[in-house]
Amino acid sequence: MITLNNIADIIMANDNFEIITHVYPDGDTLGCGYALCLALQHLGKHATVVTAGVLPKKFLFLTEGVRQQTFQAEYVISVDIAAASLLGKNQERYENNINICIDHHSANSIKADHIYIDSNAAAACEIIYDLIQIMKVPVTDQIANCIYTGISTDTGCFRYSNTTSKTHMIAAELMKTDCSWHKINQTMFETKTKEFIQFERMVYDTMEFFAGGKGAIVNTTLAMQKQSNLSDDQIEGIASIPRQIEGVLMGITVREKGDGIYKVSVRTNEGVNASDFCGRFDGGGHAAAAGCSLTGTLQSVKERLIQEAELLL
Amino acid sequence: MITLNNIADIIMANDNFEIITHVYPDGDTLGCGYALCLALQHLGKHATVVTAGVLPKKFLFLTEGVRQQTFQAEYVISVDIAAASLLGKNQERYENNINICIDHHSANSIKADHIYIDSNAAAACEIIYDLIQIMKVPVTDQIANCIYTGISTDTGCFRYSNTTSKTHMIAAELMKTDCSWHKINQTMFETKTKEFIQFERMVYDTMEFFAGGKGAIVNTTLAMQKQSNLSDDQIEGIASIPRQIEGVLMGITVREKGDGIYKVSVRTNEGVNASDFCGRFDGGGHAAAAGCSLTGTLQSVKERLIQEAELLL
Repeated sequence: MITLNNIADIIMANDNFEIITHVYPDGDTLGCGYALCLALQHLGKHATVVTAGVLPKKFLFLTEGVRQQTFQAEYVISVDIAAASLLGKNQERYENNINICIDHHSANSIKADHIYIDSNAAAACEIIYDLIQIMKVPVTDQIANCIYTGISTDTGCFRYSNTTSKTHMIAAELMKTDCSWHKINQTMFETKTKEFIQFERMVYDTMEFFAGGKGAIVNTTLAMQKQSNLSDDQIEGIASIPRQIEGVLMGITVREKGDGIYKVSVRTNEGVNASDFCGRFDGGGHAAAAGCSLTGTLQSVKERLIQEAELLL
Repeated sequence: MITLNNIADIIMANDNFEIITHVYPDGDTLGCGYALCLALQHLGKHATVVTAGVLPKKFLFLTEGVRQQTFQAEYVISVDIAAASLLGKNQERYENNINICIDHHSANSIKADHIYIDSNAAAACEIIYDLIQIMKVPVTDQIANCIYTGISTDTGCFRYSNTTSKTHMIAAELMKTDCSWHKINQTMFETKTKEFIQFERMVYDTMEFFAGGKGAIVNTTLAMQKQSNLSDDQIEGIASIPRQIEGVLMGITVREKGDGIYKVSVRTNEGVNASDFCGRFDGGGHAAAAGCSLTGTLQSVKERLIQEAELLL
């Protein structure tokens, strides 16, 4: 496989970059995108971040310091994108035009000239941090904000099993800058609106257990969202609810998206493989956190998930 | 002030240690106690940890590997204890017999032959980690478990404003051992019993806002605890509830302890000083997390707290 030094050399020899990120933008893909964009602009190159879908309000601060540049894009780098389908509305335009793919998902199926995957990286932002070091770009406060956001959100603030010694080493370095790590953690993890608390209670009301308490499933509906006046990105955090219950090894969250489509988030404990499970429904992700989409009625979707999960638990 | 090297020299020249910890035992005082005890036993000394109050079940794993030794205690070290009153039932026996005090609370009033306070340490366990390094004791998996527990619980898993670059550096080192950091985080932060979830909902039902939404107060009663069948240490986590609400700068949690006594936990955001606030009620703690005790009726206790808080916010 190509090394990160090779990747750095290739980047240094090019100009005019588009950095593409995945749908349902999260802290890691956006953190990668804006950190790399700032680094490339620092090196005197043209660069822009291409997003798929509306940027959740809580991530808007990541765009600070990025200059809007007018240029003809020549080189495309994908960050934290595991599959072409995750390009969303940008799929057609980019799926066969990616020059460099940088990712940390072991099950990556992106086609690109050069592919760099480190599945030991807790967040793709860890790779971007190393890359920025290799390119000798100083880690500014804002670059640190981006990298910290990716690392913190992908590890549940250093809680999840993907966290490594290196994750903490990078955090230690980032905290030597004047980055806003504390405010980032508050925004990502500690701040709940009154509406969200109300919504959370409704979610708890939907909780069902299966497999003798080793599985728990909750759901949201469009009606619940409407009643609480919450957008899709505002209810993201609820995926962690069912796995929190004592004894639960697999927590499933089913979110109604409309038109009979349900987005499913799976979180697991103690070696139950969430990615394998979601693979059975054409989804994927990480060992402890993965997702997929199902269509049907809420009831039928839940039944299929529970049936499959019971075989596993 | 005495240096940590001096402290190490003094310890090396002595034997037969009692390490004393504070009431309402938490991850930091116990993590300090058992890590230091293991280190001293490794050095061939006699050592034991003296606790005040029942060890919460979730902390029992910290005692693993500590040998029960029969010896005449000669030397007393206090860890993470800010005031003599926090010795609880052990106050009379120890308050004038402490040889070394090791702590990270800036407002420490312990009397001891030697006092070492580092208020930049996020957890007292950070100091114990350094001390163990100076004494050249290898950081075993179990010592790492103890230190990690102290650091993780006192920083809300690296979220709170007391976390520093050094905190992450130490975590990075601990994670090079085969310590159970992930299991520790799950136990401390992610695992909720069904009873606790029920209890949490009752707590949310008590929530009142004041100072135009900048303050929030919740309470628990003995009746609520009885209904949920939860012990005192099982409801510890609820102190973080009110500060989580968007816009809240001061979150107050009042817990009924019986006989008209109420234990108050205060958590603050953005520079509101919790320790100063609790000081007005003869309590104390850290800038963002402090506590005090009040007596009276639930209603009168809440009114006094709100009145004082409104002056501040």
